[in-house]
Amino acid sequence: MAVTIDSLVIDMNQMWLILCAVLVFFMQVGFTMLECGSVRAKNVSNIIFKNVLDAVIAILAYWICGWAFAYGGDPARATSGTKTNTFIGSGEFCLVSSGAPEPAVYASWFFQAVFAATAITIVSGAVAERITMQAYAAMAVFMCAFIYPVVVHWVWSAQGWLSAFNTDSATRFGTNGMLDFAGSGVVHLVGGTSSFIAAWILGPRLGRFGTNRESIQHKQERAKIFRPHNRCLASLGTLILWVGWYGFNCGSTLVIANGASFVAAKVAVTTTLSAAAAGATCMLTNFFLTHTLDIDATLNGILAGLVSITASCSLVEPWAAVTIGLIGGFVYLGFSRLLVMLHIDDPLNASAVHGAAGLWGVTAVGLFTTANNLSSAYAVANPEKYGLFYGGGWEQLGVQCVGWLVILAWSAVLTALLLLPLKRLGHLRISPEVEVMGLDDQEHGGAYMTSLAQPEEFPEAVNYHLPYPMKDSFAYPYLPNTTVTPSFGVPGYQQPMFF
Amino acid sequence: MAVTIDSLVIDMNQMWLILCAVLVFFMQVGFTMLECGSVRAKNVSNIIFKNVLDAVIAILAYWICGWAFAYGGDPARATSGTKTNTFIGSGEFCLVSSGAPEPAVYASWFFQAVFAATAITIVSGAVAERITMQAYAAMAVFMCAFIYPVVVHWVWSAQGWLSAFNTDSATRFGTNGMLDFAGSGVVHLVGGTSSFIAAWILGPRLGRFGTNRESIQHKQERAKIFRPHNRCLASLGTLILWVGWYGFNCGSTLVIANGASFVAAKVAVTTTLSAAAAGATCMLTNFFLTHTLDIDATLNGILAGLVSITASCSLVEPWAAVTIGLIGGFVYLGFSRLLVMLHIDDPLNASAVHGAAGLWGVTAVGLFTTANNLSSAYAVANPEKYGLFYGGGWEQLGVQCVGWLVILAWSAVLTALLLLPLKRLGHLRISPEVEVMGLDDQEHGGAYMTSLAQPEEFPEAVNYHLPYPMKDSFAYPYLPNTTVTPSFGVPGYQQPMFF
Amino acid sequence: MAVTIDSLVIDMNQMWLILCAVLVFFMQVGFTMLECGSVRAKNVSNIIFKNVLDAVIAILAYWICGWAFAYGGDPARATSGTKTNTFIGSGEFCLVSSGAPEPAVYASWFFQAVFAATAITIVSGAVAERITMQAYAAMAVFMCAFIYPVVVHWVWSAQGWLSAFNTDSATRFGTNGMLDFAGSGVVHLVGGTSSFIAAWILGPRLGRFGTNRESIQHKQERAKIFRPHNRCLASLGTLILWVGWYGFNCGSTLVIANGASFVAAKVAVTTTLSAAAAGATCMLTNFFLTHTLDIDATLNGILAGLVSITASCSLVEPWAAVTIGLIGGFVYLGFSRLLVMLHIDDPLNASAVHGAAGLWGVTAVGLFTTANNLSSAYAVANPEKYGLFYGGGWEQLGVQCVGWLVILAWSAVLTALLLLPLKRLGHLRISPEVEVMGLDDQEHGGAYMTSLAQPEEFPEAVNYHLPYPMKDSFAYPYLPNTTVTPSFGVPGYQQPMFF
Repeated sequence: MAVTIDSLVIDMNQMWLILCAVLVFFMQVGFTMLECGSVRAKNVSNIIFKNVLDAVIAILAYWICGWAFAYGGDPARATSGTKTNTFIGSGEFCLVSSGAPEPAVYASWFFQAVFAATAITIVSGAVAERITMQAYAAMAVFMCAFIYPVVVHWVWSAQGWLSAFNTDSATRFGTNGMLDFAGSGVVHLVGGTSSFIAAWILGPRLGRFGTNRESIQHKQERAKIFRPHNRCLASLGTLILWVGWYGFNCGSTLVIANGASFVAAKVAVTTTLSAAAAGATCMLTNFFLTHTLDIDATLNGILAGLVSITASCSLVEPWAAVTIGLIGGFVYLGFSRLLVMLHIDDPLNASAVHGAAGLWGVTAVGLFTTANNLSSAYAVANPEKYGLFYGGGWEQLGVQCVGWLVILAWSAVLTALLLLPLKRLGHLRISPEVEVMGLDDQEHGGAYMTSLAQPEEFPEAVNYHLPYPMKDSFAYPYLPNTTVTPSFGVPGYQQPMFF
Repeated sequence: MAVTIDSLVIDMNQMWLILCAVLVFFMQVGFTMLECGSVRAKNVSNIIFKNVLDAVIAILAYWICGWAFAYGGDPARATSGTKTNTFIGSGEFCLVSSGAPEPAVYASWFFQAVFAATAITIVSGAVAERITMQAYAAMAVFMCAFIYPVVVHWVWSAQGWLSAFNTDSATRFGTNGMLDFAGSGVVHLVGGTSSFIAAWILGPRLGRFGTNRESIQHKQERAKIFRPHNRCLASLGTLILWVGWYGFNCGSTLVIANGASFVAAKVAVTTTLSAAAAGATCMLTNFFLTHTLDIDATLNGILAGLVSITASCSLVEPWAAVTIGLIGGFVYLGFSRLLVMLHIDDPLNASAVHGAAGLWGVTAVGLFTTANNLSSAYAVANPEKYGLFYGGGWEQLGVQCVGWLVILAWSAVLTALLLLPLKRLGHLRISPEVEVMGLDDQEHGGAYMTSLAQPEEFPEAVNYHLPYPMKDSFAYPYLPNTTVTPSFGVPGYQQPMFF
Repeated sequence: MAVTIDSLVIDMNQMWLILCAVLVFFMQVGFTMLECGSVRAKNVSNIIFKNVLDAVIAILAYWICGWAFAYGGDPARATSGTKTNTFIGSGEFCLVSSGAPEPAVYASWFFQAVFAATAITIVSGAVAERITMQAYAAMAVFMCAFIYPVVVHWVWSAQGWLSAFNTDSATRFGTNGMLDFAGSGVVHLVGGTSSFIAAWILGPRLGRFGTNRESIQHKQERAKIFRPHNRCLASLGTLILWVGWYGFNCGSTLVIANGASFVAAKVAVTTTLSAAAAGATCMLTNFFLTHTLDIDATLNGILAGLVSITASCSLVEPWAAVTIGLIGGFVYLGFSRLLVMLHIDDPLNASAVHGAAGLWGVTAVGLFTTANNLSSAYAVANPEKYGLFYGGGWEQLGVQCVGWLVILAWSAVLTALLLLPLKRLGHLRISPEVEVMGLDDQEHGGAYMTSLAQPEEFPEAVNYHLPYPMKDSFAYPYLPNTTVTPSFGVPGYQQPMFF
């Protein structure tokens, strides 16, 4: 095949998409570490297991039907027919296309599948330390196979009723459709809403709030803070998420050639600024309120800033990104206090970070979008409706609000429809005994780590009589005169079979 | 220099190769963390040291002669002459070329060098907690300077007797040569076989198996499981490996322009699906067998799925990738049980994950390769021989089996030739005393971490009389009225020289 | 917009810059983990907070004025006017340009901003465990808003008096200007010098050195080594830094098209080789001197190798990279001993790793640069002045030495001008009591991690009477007959509001 400019464009775009998808997949590492560091020590193995489980389930579910419901039969891709359904896609189940093999589908599938994995992982934090594994697995399957793909179809496919990529104005809601560039609504609000509902239905962890709701509201009792068990891991996770977010936001250009690199570069800048602004907001607010330097709030503030800018990252100017982040920081702080007041126990604050900030992010598009940016990012020539603050009218803001309202309702109702029956059947929550003892001990074969001092880790020290004096810890045993060949006299030493 | 389409193609290909090589190098972080998390707490510093050591040695050894043996004198690169040797390369030792400077060599060298580092790192897990540092260093040099490069020359150079890139059918074995796209055989089987042989020769860790082999086989005694000391680190490492694997597999296209991006995208999809399928297999199998949710087996299952698909990632359809991963999960589970039965102690299960699954991966190419994929990935027009299940005949399966048989024999024999003399001389294994006390204490100056409660970490609290009352832990010492300038009266406080 | 070769070139260059900038930002994760692992357990939360704080401050400060001082008004970019100032830039404060919107600025800003974040993060290690948060915040603002951007303007802008990109020979110092490809001087020497001065002014941590300087110099007392609290984290951080360094060095080509990929590939090779050579040097030297296998020195050696090659990575041959790394290893080892002799307490050895090795790296350019490499990397046709060892004369070496001398003086003087008044006012150093108790406990609400055995983490185990017998740890609670619905009789269990 001869190399032409057109083939180079395709290769470059796919290279970009693959590399950004790898960065998005890297966010799985970030979520796992953040959650490991934020739960109590007795439930660390369990939260690792849930994170690995949801990655595996997300991939398989998205392969079987998630992609089909989201983008299957999209007229934008030639071989998929011309079915039009503004609610849900169909076609290409298990990546099997009815027509000729379509190689272009793979890069897109990879990018979208890692997004789906992100959506469910958000929920794992909110339900941590008390949901049963089978309920969580059911949640993961339902989320990646149905709840999330349908929202993707609405907002990002070429057929969706809310989609800016739906070129048919008859089936599209609003002049531009809903603008959610990288998924403050599609990914984070979906995950955050499910988190909120799931945490509510599950109930708080034992001992998190006092027994009497009124007494707490009268500030006679305080909510007990379950401290994150390891802030190194929490900060490692958060910073990795920040790194991965560049794949998430910049990669949402989907292409890089034909000038899209300018959009991607602007996205990198707005993403960076919003995260920093939100982090600074939470850092300073907490300092003035509590006179402590609160790492946990700062890290969550950074995440809230990232979520807030995700919808509008390609649509706003740098100063607006700073403003969006700053407000996003306050949205996070306020909503996390609201959760405590409502006695809803969200161990990772997932509903505040992803839900509330995601909702703010979708809304902010209607306020700060400039006409120029809308032109470059969505190829809309001479846009009529854009950000309210730039004189673009109220319409876009309205469309955005309808958008988050529908997404919120959809995610909330479906999550409840899945979890309430599970609760009634007694399969939703682990028993109080298991919760007290810790899931690691009860279901995963023991604590996630062994201590240096733990005697069972040194069984030999107990069992074996050592015929030699112990080495001075500064002596170097490799020197010829101190090397001792393995001693067959030491009990427990076993000679290999043939050597 | 004027920019042409041809120069853009070269630049794009090199950009791709560099970025993928960085991802592969990232796997060093993954291996280090996985091994840190999987050994016992008393040997963590030692395993870190070994991982850093082998990265350093691999790079220097590959620079000095590894590259020369693998690709030196390859006729595919113009300046390197036309020597043909199907067994071993020669030329470009220390990256010094006899002819004119050849800038194109650098991107390839970087990509191949990080592969070499991967091959030796695999072994470090199998010999963990008992091999001496000098024996391990010798192993690393020998592996990266000779064992691995020669296999690369056979399978991936333009001259090798097994190589699909050898265009001379007279010196090539089989119609297509051996197909090992990203190195299930070349990298993982080599590393896994050396792991197996090294673990066998070394013998098990003290106390791992009972003293009487027969009694265990009669199930009267059980093998003692040495629990991984920190599952956070083990999961961190595994997930990072998964991320890095996209560089490993997708990057093995070597180029991205001229339609190679379609191959790379398909590789990303098959790699993802196989990892998920294998992870799910191990998760579920372990649950049904033991009724616990076993993180360690799930993580190793994911790795086994990645190893299994590595050879065929560009050659099979998505459903086949799921199947290959699923079988790869069982191969891992079975082989790791076999190791216990044989009383071969492989602390990281490296021989199961990389050896057994690598062997399965090479074999799977002969079963699932489609003609279309072989065409795109290897530029074979109208292939005659391909996967058995697609009617491509038995030949490719036979070539694959000969391939792994030769690689297995080569790695096993050379590993034994190095380690058996070392064993005889008493330099292979640390003394039982050091093993009991832990390598960290004996050779690395102490435990890998200090505990919060460890009194020696707070010497000041013991030694100094504090003239001031301790602050309330909620008071904030930055406020002006509570700030105290460093007090010269406090013993141990030393004023800097001039200020 | 029609796609042309020219537009593809721009898109490709921006893609490269964005992805490399993400890798550089990843170094923030590396620094955080390295410092977490290297301080004492009682100050881990504090060092995390400082690392997060400086990332946030660096970004905001670089947005407000850092970029303006570094590159603002650069004639290389069309809309920025033609002001020429060889000392400091002006224009584009807050990324607001006076002229038309200039989309090309975003990718450059992103890449430069993450570099600025690196420069300040270096200092956090040297002042760890004893500087107040307000002094550190002031340092971060001053560094990213002024000290660092001005040096960037000198060496990297199109106007700077030291800059190789300044095409006006009347305002440029030397034939080529100072050659500092990726910033051994601009980034690491600035950070390292500030580290040295700050550590000196702050004074050592309590108890680090004996009370009597003379007695130590007579070797009657030894400097107390404060052991790194967790080597897993330190090695994780170092290896991540190595990974990120490929973005730092390779990305400093700024472009990838038009043959720059050959430069980037060579940079990857020299970077890899120098790191490995320096790591091996420190590993072996320490082994022969102390007969222990010192992980900390090896890891720092690798970093010193990376710093050493950063200036010359595109300008030297592979063998020279090995030599530069090897000498860089010794420079690190020597300078870290000198610090101990001077009783300057640099907890992370930042002044040795970044300062001393950075200085060596800038100097090495004057020795090892070849004419060919200078041609390719800096587009200098027929260079007259290059490396001394290649017969390029003494001039370049002289320019390099003037370069580091000026950078060193600038950073040292400004750092002292900021910190000495703070010290006089009593705002520089935490009180001895806080230092003894640990910053985490006093300012961040407690230790960075909770132990498995910590009773306060299991309040329920104390408070609740469990009406059910505890489960056998092998029994699986998910099986229907063992599942117990949440028991309202258990005190502390609270039914959610509506469900």
